[in-house]
Amino acid sequence: MDSYIVGIDIGGTKLATVVADGNGKILQKVRKPTESEKGPQHAVRLLLEMVDETIHLAGLKREEISGIGVSCGGPLDTKTGVVYSPPNLPGWDALPLKELIEAEFHIPTTIENDANASALAEWRFGGGRGYNYVLYMTMSTGIGGGIVANGQVYHGANDSAGEVGHQILLPTGPLCGCGKRGCLEALCSGPAIARRAQAAIREHPQTQLLALADGQIDRVRSEHVLEAARNGDALALSLINETAYYMGWGIANLVNILNPEIVLIGTIAVAAGDLLLDPIRRTVAEMAMQRPAEVVRIMPAELGDSVGDLAAIALVMN
Amino acid sequence: MDSYIVGIDIGGTKLATVVADGNGKILQKVRKPTESEKGPQHAVRLLLEMVDETIHLAGLKREEISGIGVSCGGPLDTKTGVVYSPPNLPGWDALPLKELIEAEFHIPTTIENDANASALAEWRFGGGRGYNYVLYMTMSTGIGGGIVANGQVYHGANDSAGEVGHQILLPTGPLCGCGKRGCLEALCSGPAIARRAQAAIREHPQTQLLALADGQIDRVRSEHVLEAARNGDALALSLINETAYYMGWGIANLVNILNPEIVLIGTIAVAAGDLLLDPIRRTVAEMAMQRPAEVVRIMPAELGDSVGDLAAIALVMN
Repeated sequence: MDSYIVGIDIGGTKLATVVADGNGKILQKVRKPTESEKGPQHAVRLLLEMVDETIHLAGLKREEISGIGVSCGGPLDTKTGVVYSPPNLPGWDALPLKELIEAEFHIPTTIENDANASALAEWRFGGGRGYNYVLYMTMSTGIGGGIVANGQVYHGANDSAGEVGHQILLPTGPLCGCGKRGCLEALCSGPAIARRAQAAIREHPQTQLLALADGQIDRVRSEHVLEAARNGDALALSLINETAYYMGWGIANLVNILNPEIVLIGTIAVAAGDLLLDPIRRTVAEMAMQRPAEVVRIMPAELGDSVGDLAAIALVMN
Repeated sequence: MDSYIVGIDIGGTKLATVVADGNGKILQKVRKPTESEKGPQHAVRLLLEMVDETIHLAGLKREEISGIGVSCGGPLDTKTGVVYSPPNLPGWDALPLKELIEAEFHIPTTIENDANASALAEWRFGGGRGYNYVLYMTMSTGIGGGIVANGQVYHGANDSAGEVGHQILLPTGPLCGCGKRGCLEALCSGPAIARRAQAAIREHPQTQLLALADGQIDRVRSEHVLEAARNGDALALSLINETAYYMGWGIANLVNILNPEIVLIGTIAVAAGDLLLDPIRRTVAEMAMQRPAEVVRIMPAELGDSVGDLAAIALVMN
């Protein structure tokens, strides 16, 4: 009998359930809004129904599912499967998610935070295929990370390893969402790039940036910076180079500490491509030690929007 | 038949060979100067003789040795056993050390850089016993490191992982031995503390530090800073607190990235004890994320001068 997998991707705005075959090929998918304001009981009940619906749509029965993988915002405990107050899921406080799912389906369930699960998906299906030491970094509203060594997530003592966006570069720098100052995330996330752009425009108003945001400075976003930089706008290019400097500095430290074969960077780095990645690579070559710098490749992540589904699936294939 | 182990500890000034039983109890030890100016051929010939001498002194025969562990300055390749130009071993350039040892003894030989081997020894015999995620940091003439996860050294792509002393904190800071600026090592190694002390004395000559160094400012060393701080000297205490701030900042970043259960710090931290460790702990609590900070213990390394012998032995017990 063939064996199938269920993947559950839990985000702050949407829930997705997928059914895949043993090779990770996705056969069916169901998506619904999380409606996180209705609390965890609502979302969990919805998820359990969505799993059954997805299995049914795939023409399968519960008995044909060999494992369930769940990708969810952390912090969470991978051993007990308890989720602790993710910032994007208000009220999910010490929720025994693994237990609730296993009680319903009697199918072994693996829970992982979304950055680690995405790292594993990039290793199995994406840009990390064939590499033994993979560092995956998200770069969007925050900067997160996941470390995959020899096909296993590096969890650390309480599943907190890989918080690469909260390495502090400038202790008196801008305030970070985590409450500290000058974290890589506070300098290079999408909102951080936008904040730096808005401040720069006030000092150097001769830029395309303002026009791209309909003349409203508080509407300038990181996407506008990328677009203006592609058009050759000097201010936008200097913002890109500043971003690349901080990213390169942070990645150089990670290269010295973790000695990855490949660093895969998501969303903003995917959108920006070599415009951002080339100056990052130059900074890493300058700031990291020669031996680990020689071996590392710095590349955009490959899975794009499908990373969430594959993240959940990859947990069970491991 | 009982099984015995040979350990080889290769330093820039001395060579040591030990024989231990299967539990890691050291039965015999032979030490000789490296005479590194005579080059690698001399040292290797000497080592091979010392191994035979140590086995003989232990009342054993070559046939009773099940494995040989070698702890040596890096960079080196743990798979091929080739050593590449360690800074303290001039002329050791692409030396096939594992091959040379195995050709002589026909005993499986494992080679590891000294910081990683020491980390493994602290995990097996020292302050890291019982912990799954151990970060060991040297703090003497340099700042090195080794990561042990679930009883295994975390090697990285080309055996360069764990270079925690070369994370850059101040890109325009003091020059480091590695050629970059503002590495943790350039701020907090013994020589770095001495340099900061010498500069501080020039501005604030009202300090015991000068007297402790016989009135000669260029003889002030990190040991004098510790001694004066214990005596309540204000300048020395401020140097200790500055050192603790940089160490705490660097360790906070490592706590966020690696989520260790325990950080063990060698030499200077062992000599200084809580005088240095308490302000380090406070800085980590302030600068690291709450969840990984909650779980980590920051402690002096435990093995002291015996770490080299046990480092080589631990490689074979793994």
